Amino acid sequence: MRTARIPDPRVCSIDEAMRILGEKWAMVAMRELTFGVHRFDEIVFNTGAPRDILAARLRSLEEAGLLEKRAYTERPVRYEYVLSQAGLELFNVLHTIRDWGDRHVRDDPENVTKFFHDDHEFRPELTCAVCGKIVQRDSVTSGRDLHRSEIA
Amino acid sequence: MRTARIPDPRVCSIDEAMRILGEKWAMVAMRELTFGVHRFDEIVFNTGAPRDILAARLRSLEEAGLLEKRAYTERPVRYEYVLSQAGLELFNVLHTIRDWGDRHVRDDPENVTKFFHDDHEFRPELTCAVCGKIVQRDSVTSGRDLHRSEIA
Repeated sequence: MRTARIPDPRVCSIDEAMRILGEKWAMVAMRELTFGVHRFDEIVFNTGAPRDILAARLRSLEEAGLLEKRAYTERPVRYEYVLSQAGLELFNVLHTIRDWGDRHVRDDPENVTKFFHDDHEFRPELTCAVCGKIVQRDSVTSGRDLHRSEIA
Repeated sequence: MRTARIPDPRVCSIDEAMRILGEKWAMVAMRELTFGVHRFDEIVFNTGAPRDILAARLRSLEEAGLLEKRAYTERPVRYEYVLSQAGLELFNVLHTIRDWGDRHVRDDPENVTKFFHDDHEFRPELTCAVCGKIVQRDSVTSGRDLHRSEIA
């Protein structure tokens, strides 16, 4: 007979990052800011997010340190949203997810927006900054043992 | 006076991918499978996900084509979860998010698990597969005009 064990979750940044980025509309809001769209009405227009939910999400993203809200006019006071360094660096995540999504979750692959790097089509690839090589899944190992339940 | 416009959301794989990956526990379940953890009880142990929610999430991920559920014993019948090609290719997304999270959302950066690529520390970097160069945010452009609201 097997005894249920109390879970012992892996300490992992994926979990923590997804608490911020996994919230509905968070990633598409970050996409808009990354594409240079800074104003609330434009983000609504480009995402279709409900205004109240988007406002709450932008507040959460600000609290998480991914963006700042700045006044760009005084009378009437109007705000725009500007990425922090952490927000700017989400660029890699956004393009990696977009590329994966283009290849694996689209029903209409012929309708995918292309992106360009300098003068050619941009095809994202994960490399290792230390050696410069393309990274294969089985060439990466964890610095700690895989966290296995003793009963499993 | 400004007139509210009906949103016209950008067609984008980030949105579609996040409908799958943004669901709570989805990305950490994919993390476990990518790390070679295939059985339900082990995924519960390593994530802390409630069993009923995890079961529903694994079903959604199967329906989305990211994994397959396979029987590995007959009596009693027991199942394990195996990544599809789309699931295997999420590897890049997982490591890109992990790296971003390690740098930007952890309260305890000294406690971050290190990963190794071959014999050295693995530091993910986004490059372009076409030219092999490291990609900077402002060197990527969209193949379509940025989608701006006319009133914004």
